[in-house]
Amino acid sequence: MPSPSRRDLANAVRFLAIDAVQAANSGHPGMPMGMADIAEVLWNDYLSHNPANPTWFNRDRFVLSNGHGSMLQYALLHLAGYELSIDDLKNFRQLESKTPGHPENFMTPGVETTTGPLGQGFANAVGMALAEKLLAQRFNRPEHEIVDHRTWVFMGDGCLMEGISHEAASLAGTWGLHKLVAFWDDNHISIDGDTAGWFTDDTPARFEAYGWNVVRGVDGHDADSIKAAIDQALACTDKPTLVCCRTTIGYGSPNKAGKESSHGAPLGLEEIAACRTGLCWEHEPFVIPQAVYDGWRVGDAGTVREAQWNQAFDRYAQRFPELAAELTRRSHAELPEGFLAAADAYIAKLQADGPVVASRKASQMAIEAFAPRLPELIGGSADLAHSNLTLWSGSKSANSSDPDANYIYYGVREFAMTAISNGLNLHGGFIPYDATFLVFSDYARNAVRMSALMGAHAIHVYTHDSIGLGEDGPTHQPVEHMASLRYIPHNDVWRPCDAVESAVSWRAAIQRADGPSCLVFSRQNLDHQPRSDAQVADIARGGYVLKDSAGTPEVILIATGSEVGLAMQAAAQLGDGVRVVSMPSTDVFDRQDAAYRESVLPKACRRRVAIEAGVSDFWRKYVGLDGAVIGIDSFGASAPAGKLFPHFGFTVERVVEVARAL
Amino acid sequence: MPSPSRRDLANAVRFLAIDAVQAANSGHPGMPMGMADIAEVLWNDYLSHNPANPTWFNRDRFVLSNGHGSMLQYALLHLAGYELSIDDLKNFRQLESKTPGHPENFMTPGVETTTGPLGQGFANAVGMALAEKLLAQRFNRPEHEIVDHRTWVFMGDGCLMEGISHEAASLAGTWGLHKLVAFWDDNHISIDGDTAGWFTDDTPARFEAYGWNVVRGVDGHDADSIKAAIDQALACTDKPTLVCCRTTIGYGSPNKAGKESSHGAPLGLEEIAACRTGLCWEHEPFVIPQAVYDGWRVGDAGTVREAQWNQAFDRYAQRFPELAAELTRRSHAELPEGFLAAADAYIAKLQADGPVVASRKASQMAIEAFAPRLPELIGGSADLAHSNLTLWSGSKSANSSDPDANYIYYGVREFAMTAISNGLNLHGGFIPYDATFLVFSDYARNAVRMSALMGAHAIHVYTHDSIGLGEDGPTHQPVEHMASLRYIPHNDVWRPCDAVESAVSWRAAIQRADGPSCLVFSRQNLDHQPRSDAQVADIARGGYVLKDSAGTPEVILIATGSEVGLAMQAAAQLGDGVRVVSMPSTDVFDRQDAAYRESVLPKACRRRVAIEAGVSDFWRKYVGLDGAVIGIDSFGASAPAGKLFPHFGFTVERVVEVARAL
Repeated sequence: MPSPSRRDLANAVRFLAIDAVQAANSGHPGMPMGMADIAEVLWNDYLSHNPANPTWFNRDRFVLSNGHGSMLQYALLHLAGYELSIDDLKNFRQLESKTPGHPENFMTPGVETTTGPLGQGFANAVGMALAEKLLAQRFNRPEHEIVDHRTWVFMGDGCLMEGISHEAASLAGTWGLHKLVAFWDDNHISIDGDTAGWFTDDTPARFEAYGWNVVRGVDGHDADSIKAAIDQALACTDKPTLVCCRTTIGYGSPNKAGKESSHGAPLGLEEIAACRTGLCWEHEPFVIPQAVYDGWRVGDAGTVREAQWNQAFDRYAQRFPELAAELTRRSHAELPEGFLAAADAYIAKLQADGPVVASRKASQMAIEAFAPRLPELIGGSADLAHSNLTLWSGSKSANSSDPDANYIYYGVREFAMTAISNGLNLHGGFIPYDATFLVFSDYARNAVRMSALMGAHAIHVYTHDSIGLGEDGPTHQPVEHMASLRYIPHNDVWRPCDAVESAVSWRAAIQRADGPSCLVFSRQNLDHQPRSDAQVADIARGGYVLKDSAGTPEVILIATGSEVGLAMQAAAQLGDGVRVVSMPSTDVFDRQDAAYRESVLPKACRRRVAIEAGVSDFWRKYVGLDGAVIGIDSFGASAPAGKLFPHFGFTVERVVEVARAL
Repeated sequence: MPSPSRRDLANAVRFLAIDAVQAANSGHPGMPMGMADIAEVLWNDYLSHNPANPTWFNRDRFVLSNGHGSMLQYALLHLAGYELSIDDLKNFRQLESKTPGHPENFMTPGVETTTGPLGQGFANAVGMALAEKLLAQRFNRPEHEIVDHRTWVFMGDGCLMEGISHEAASLAGTWGLHKLVAFWDDNHISIDGDTAGWFTDDTPARFEAYGWNVVRGVDGHDADSIKAAIDQALACTDKPTLVCCRTTIGYGSPNKAGKESSHGAPLGLEEIAACRTGLCWEHEPFVIPQAVYDGWRVGDAGTVREAQWNQAFDRYAQRFPELAAELTRRSHAELPEGFLAAADAYIAKLQADGPVVASRKASQMAIEAFAPRLPELIGGSADLAHSNLTLWSGSKSANSSDPDANYIYYGVREFAMTAISNGLNLHGGFIPYDATFLVFSDYARNAVRMSALMGAHAIHVYTHDSIGLGEDGPTHQPVEHMASLRYIPHNDVWRPCDAVESAVSWRAAIQRADGPSCLVFSRQNLDHQPRSDAQVADIARGGYVLKDSAGTPEVILIATGSEVGLAMQAAAQLGDGVRVVSMPSTDVFDRQDAAYRESVLPKACRRRVAIEAGVSDFWRKYVGLDGAVIGIDSFGASAPAGKLFPHFGFTVERVVEVARAL
């Protein structure tokens, strides 16, 4: 084979995608065929990475927001020399393979984020680009641009139709993230066919309205056109860039190019043969000529790149040893030395002081206590800073060049906020928290799920956790939300009952490096609960005996959050036989060993009452068919909180009555 | 008092809002103060309605998408003569009052939709405007423009930041809904302060990019400027209009106008006194001079308007009696005569035929069977028509002037789709269905909640209901979604096990006029289950005995959807003592009387196994602590479905083993 042309290099991507989808009898060939030329130019001429080390900190981030085209990314990773073999590609979409149906950051080296749910990859990328900007302004010094990389994102029409694209693009424009470059795969086709019937936006004008640099009219199958567009993006130093690439979906398929039939199904053997002829690609499935590999793996460029950066970092470390150590610590996601001990001391002091505050206030106090030692903590709220109480004395707007910038005014954009949190964490160097009212976790829900699926260390703060928010009424009062969030696998949900449990929940969320935590706080004041040191320690186990019975418990009251105080009052009336279990995190409690769980909820005691101002059926897992639940199974109502709790049956009398009736 | 000026009329709105918020010691005065002048012009000079009959079918629809400004709407309704007394206003935000914290369509005459969750009111309004367009093209005849009204919507910066505003505005532009007029309350303030830090969009340019008519630079405190803008909106006959009104939040407050401090809290008595002086409003709280009432209640204009329309409708009915009867039937939300009997006949035939199909296919067959008799059924999918199987032989694009237009290509916009469904139904004349993959119900989640809260008769179709979707992997495989949707109060969720249950679920969803249904269908084929006539009838009770034990049941297997077939196979191995309960809708089953529930799940039998390819804890409500659940409590995986079911423990052998171990 003579020296391969750019088209030949791109065709290698096309046929790996075509053949892998055919072998799996499942997948999406059209997008990789359409974006192969763009990807070839970007990866071979611009992308700064090191396939030998996918975790090199200063690498460019590449995000495939239109994740159904996963074979594009797998082909690129393989051709560029990542640890993804031709056999891995042959195993596309098979159980436990490194090449699942959509890119998964926890399965495949070189995949930065998990995509597929449309629009979220783009928002993750905005988070990554923000991370780069903030780390650069924190750590770079003149002649030591130690943090300096770009975020590139591919997105399709679907991503652009989704609402989250609006939220994320608007923020990226406001923040002027000029190292973010998005490529729009403008192919006029979505699953239902020609987008003319449902996607008539002037997308370039829309992005200009967000303050983006827009490069129009790029021929996505012409390398020169693509290069010129990327050069324009690089030349822009104050805005993110949208590169509008006119492409043909299924490019190279004589009968399916430009049609939705190439989108989400194998092309079929006959059509594949026709593609081979049309694109002059004579190689068997999964056979890539060495010359093509050589064209992709341009020597040791990646290794050299990282080595040069390592040298630069050494110079930086000599000149600024503390900064270098700090950046290294943060990039390795290690907590500062002594952090947890200091947190424990704070918690012990809180237990001794016994402040009576709303748990949202206790949350703010915890941030205030922990954040000064934790510069990687970056916060924000969806326009509810003074309700969520997410600001602390050291908060400085991320929309600034302040080296200590650590607070994000997200505006009313819950979904992008949460996906940006994911991106900030996936980039590295940050533990993000975001916040809104608990009921509006609905708006962000799939991004919370993605936090959990990806194992992102993100902290989602949800205040106004029940009918206790009062007058704003049922649209703002969560009922099913606690239970629904708990049901997201690998998601830890906390609903603390006082300032001490609130601080413990923050400590747990900061310590939990491999997944998200949802911290749920009250609007209204909550009583302080007395505890022994052992009880304080047991809070971290998710559920514990807050007040024990004399002897074997006759009745167990299980409660969370604002209902723990109620349970304690009822227990006082019910007498010595009653145990009260505070259960701030069912997720964490369920992970404890059987002996501990038995010690808290002994099987022999079936007279159990769960109390939570949310849907009752969730609690059947603890009280079974023989126990009782005091919950809310209808929507709330608009009234002062003090009227609502009795209205919905949350009174000491009722708890006593229900417990006695068991 | 001399004849009141326009400003006086607007000030009546301002002070009702100011004083009601102060009385409640809770609420949002700033927005009503800022939008009062716009509202005054719109309501007094343009809005076509009849306060004496809030349900007059041809009324203009008015939607307050920035629903926190609810007192604006309550003041308008009161002043215009709706059944909302001054005492109702004094009861603002009190338990069971007609004036809850946010507007609720089920509490207050004249409130068209429930708002507060930002952006959704706007999307509801798009649905209402689409309903008007489609009814007009279906029913109007030359010289008989019997359906002819507008949809007006107020929205704030928050609505515009939300992603759903992008989705809804894009669709409204594509559809050319020229009778939709949105007023942007451009006050530069959101809860966190001056929006310059987080909302820098060029919103007029953005809406032009969607194909909207945009009226820029309107002084929202100048009646002439507002009138000129509305006239421009009325003159535009092919596009929706955005009227960009520059306003001052808290207009009239000497110290809080233009500041976030006026947004969400009472002004305080001192500041209110200063407002009275500044705006020359000398009246006591809740005292409105008769002259001001007279200025608002311009004679019997509303009654006359409706009477004229009634006359026109009579002429129409004489000329087109069948059309008139049909429009009347649809506007009263009555099912066609004989519809349910025909549905039952279809279901009986299905039971006899016993087709083995995927339940998504069975869903399409049900639509095909029911839709020809049900012209109010209007469908759509978020770009998954051929996966959700939502098209039927009579589908015609809503983006056309076809009188039978009944199918909406929503593009990839799950949230707006669902909120538009709500709007279509709230308008009247339609039973909407929408569709996406079950996992992406997450994207639409709060709109599903709003369907339930509002009692909207909307049908949400969710296909690809489990790991059974296979290769697309964990991003696309629902796990927690069934349980989470069931926990939304007043929401009926169905997961049918075969074609017969699928048809019954559609019948139930069509019959359920006072709330939404979520219909959840499989990607893969499901076995047909044999049933007696009585069993077929019992499907509608949500849960029933599909296969009974000989004598008292020793073990009860409870299953839904694709797991019912598995339960039946396991029961065959387990022997005569086993009962199988099919539970397509736990919501409906839980509403049955105690005797029926006991007949299906007798208390005495505690050896119960629930089987569902979703989170297991949900099922503890039926199996208690003594039973077992075969579920999935982790994320799924990318592989062929046939590999995934055994991988996650869904085998006959395991069910048998678990049942025997109890």
